[in-house]
Amino acid sequence: MKKKLKIGLVGFGVVGQGLYDVLQKSPALDAEILSICVKNKKQRSLPDGLFCYSADDILNNPEINLVVELISESEQAYHIVTKALKAGKNVVSANKKMIAENLNELVQLQKENNVSLLYEASACGSIPVIRNLEEYYDNDLLLSVTGILNGSSNYILSKIFDHNKDYSTALKEAQDLGFAEADPSFDVDGFDSLFKLVILTAHSFGTLVNPNDVLNYGISNISDFDIRYAKEKGYKIKLVGQVEKLEENKISLFVLPRLVQRDKYIYNVEDEFNGVVIKGLAYDKQFMFGKGAGGHPTGSAVLSDITAIAHDYRYEYKKMNFYNSFKYEKDVTIEIYLRYKKMEDLEKFKFESISEEYIGPEYNYKIGMIKIKDLMSLKEHLRSMDIFIAVTRKTLNY
Amino acid sequence: MKKKLKIGLVGFGVVGQGLYDVLQKSPALDAEILSICVKNKKQRSLPDGLFCYSADDILNNPEINLVVELISESEQAYHIVTKALKAGKNVVSANKKMIAENLNELVQLQKENNVSLLYEASACGSIPVIRNLEEYYDNDLLLSVTGILNGSSNYILSKIFDHNKDYSTALKEAQDLGFAEADPSFDVDGFDSLFKLVILTAHSFGTLVNPNDVLNYGISNISDFDIRYAKEKGYKIKLVGQVEKLEENKISLFVLPRLVQRDKYIYNVEDEFNGVVIKGLAYDKQFMFGKGAGGHPTGSAVLSDITAIAHDYRYEYKKMNFYNSFKYEKDVTIEIYLRYKKMEDLEKFKFESISEEYIGPEYNYKIGMIKIKDLMSLKEHLRSMDIFIAVTRKTLNY
Repeated sequence: MKKKLKIGLVGFGVVGQGLYDVLQKSPALDAEILSICVKNKKQRSLPDGLFCYSADDILNNPEINLVVELISESEQAYHIVTKALKAGKNVVSANKKMIAENLNELVQLQKENNVSLLYEASACGSIPVIRNLEEYYDNDLLLSVTGILNGSSNYILSKIFDHNKDYSTALKEAQDLGFAEADPSFDVDGFDSLFKLVILTAHSFGTLVNPNDVLNYGISNISDFDIRYAKEKGYKIKLVGQVEKLEENKISLFVLPRLVQRDKYIYNVEDEFNGVVIKGLAYDKQFMFGKGAGGHPTGSAVLSDITAIAHDYRYEYKKMNFYNSFKYEKDVTIEIYLRYKKMEDLEKFKFESISEEYIGPEYNYKIGMIKIKDLMSLKEHLRSMDIFIAVTRKTLNY
Repeated sequence: MKKKLKIGLVGFGVVGQGLYDVLQKSPALDAEILSICVKNKKQRSLPDGLFCYSADDILNNPEINLVVELISESEQAYHIVTKALKAGKNVVSANKKMIAENLNELVQLQKENNVSLLYEASACGSIPVIRNLEEYYDNDLLLSVTGILNGSSNYILSKIFDHNKDYSTALKEAQDLGFAEADPSFDVDGFDSLFKLVILTAHSFGTLVNPNDVLNYGISNISDFDIRYAKEKGYKIKLVGQVEKLEENKISLFVLPRLVQRDKYIYNVEDEFNGVVIKGLAYDKQFMFGKGAGGHPTGSAVLSDITAIAHDYRYEYKKMNFYNSFKYEKDVTIEIYLRYKKMEDLEKFKFESISEEYIGPEYNYKIGMIKIKDLMSLKEHLRSMDIFIAVTRKTLNY
């Protein structure tokens, strides 16, 4: 059943090196890295001959039957992955942005070229959430998938809520430790979570959603006032991605900060960990928890995909192919906490109803019901206003 | 890819009825229950014609291509399942005892008759732990699988540690609520956990172990003294099954109560929930958590197996077939807390070393290192002595 894998690895950063280490500890897997494509020649601990400097050297090498793509640039990754699939090579990738933005085409290319593209490492690092949604929660019972999908922002929030740091100190610490990039927006503004959520949505409900069409708002506007408010109420703030089944074959999805009560599973997901709650009829809630980032955890997810390729595994996209797919609906009402300063900012928000309202010397807030589509229409401006938004509680239509 | 499933269901107890309910909520799955085999004729909410009273009516029905076995008697289940496999029918079963005791033969029968036997519901109810061990943690990185595998005993322990009940009150409550049987030994003495652990071991490390050859000791001897001891130290006592990789292609496994510290994932697994910690190189620890018992949660696991059968899924027993299998080793030292009263009981335990010892008016205890094989030699007598044993901390040789 197993075939010898000859791997061309593209990218040798944290995850690429993590994979290399992990492969050394996996003698039972009959896999060999034939070539590693990197940007620049430099002193490395591995023999020079193992490296190449153009992805084409890997794509055109007929010996290589598996391309493992682990670079950060999504445009370049797109070209490498699509070329590899068209060349009849199986591919493993961890590039959430590239996958989320091109999933429709990538599904087609796999079918047309009779090859497999696996990307478990693209969402939640070492936690096998895609595989489980695809293979195990593959029936009508599934109601929602909710999770802390981004380790960097969660690390920052942990420092804020468990170690009493303010946002900028926590961010700085995360950057110093390598948990956040110099430009942290990808993580802290919810883009990383968004791409992961789009991928999970395809495998949860069979719906391909354009990431640009989904609300993502992160934690970069969080203020000491918001932190104090949450703490006084006994909440933590977490950055949460959620896709949920609604009535009539519809789903809603969004990435938003959330005020999380102590009795929620995700309340205790700290630091760089990820945690996903899978809710369904009959089984109620299941919780999967593990390291969401880092070279070795992510490398181990890549390794599991490589092993799966050795066993001819392929995503069947069961929800797309065998179930009525769900329509993405933005006309959905949720309850939010909106902290604001200026009246002119507040006026932009079309609340349907208000349940609480506070006016104070520093800041004001309102808690009320608002439609996702009305928040979406403000998407471009949310980060530039002196406001902060968090979902107060789950608002299911179902 | 999907084929119409015509199901013969054997057993219509809590799980059987749970499955029936869950199937009604799964219109997308092309499956139909043709016949339900029950013991006795009685008034039921379903049409009489759906029921039969001999399993042979199902086994000899050529229309039926999937037998779902959900009875409690393991002997009878064995005959039904083996006959069905030999008749070329796929089978889904939740019978942990029958599977654990006959796994070798069941693996052979699947191969010889080119059929599939799935049994995700046999371990940890709704949590897809077998599938993940088989498909995702299917490489050299896996180090251990540790979990709360039995909902009934965990429910009792929760009442003791979170609600200050004593053992007999907690047991009575569990029985009144249907979480424990009139004869609770199967659950509280660790047999249920043992059978589950044996199944998990096959899919974790590829080793087929005879359940009789494994140490299982439960909580029925727990006393107020033990509970007070644990509480004073800030521990909870949990009944834990564990299989662990040792050096040199060996594994150890056992079911024992454990003194669990607050920082452990399983510390917060309460009531009828199950929780499994999967530990590995590179990804460190992963935690899966969900409802371990009950008609609907278990029914949903059976449903996922039925769906998998529709997609021609089969356990490949990858660890057995593609990896060097591991030898079960009992010459392994662990640290235990032993509460005892009589000197003559204490003398039966061959401690290798003692780190703590307490002599008191009510009871005495010792904490020390002892070999699994030496505990095994006392297996038949452990429950009849006025003692209680709990593992104090993990003792890994690796």
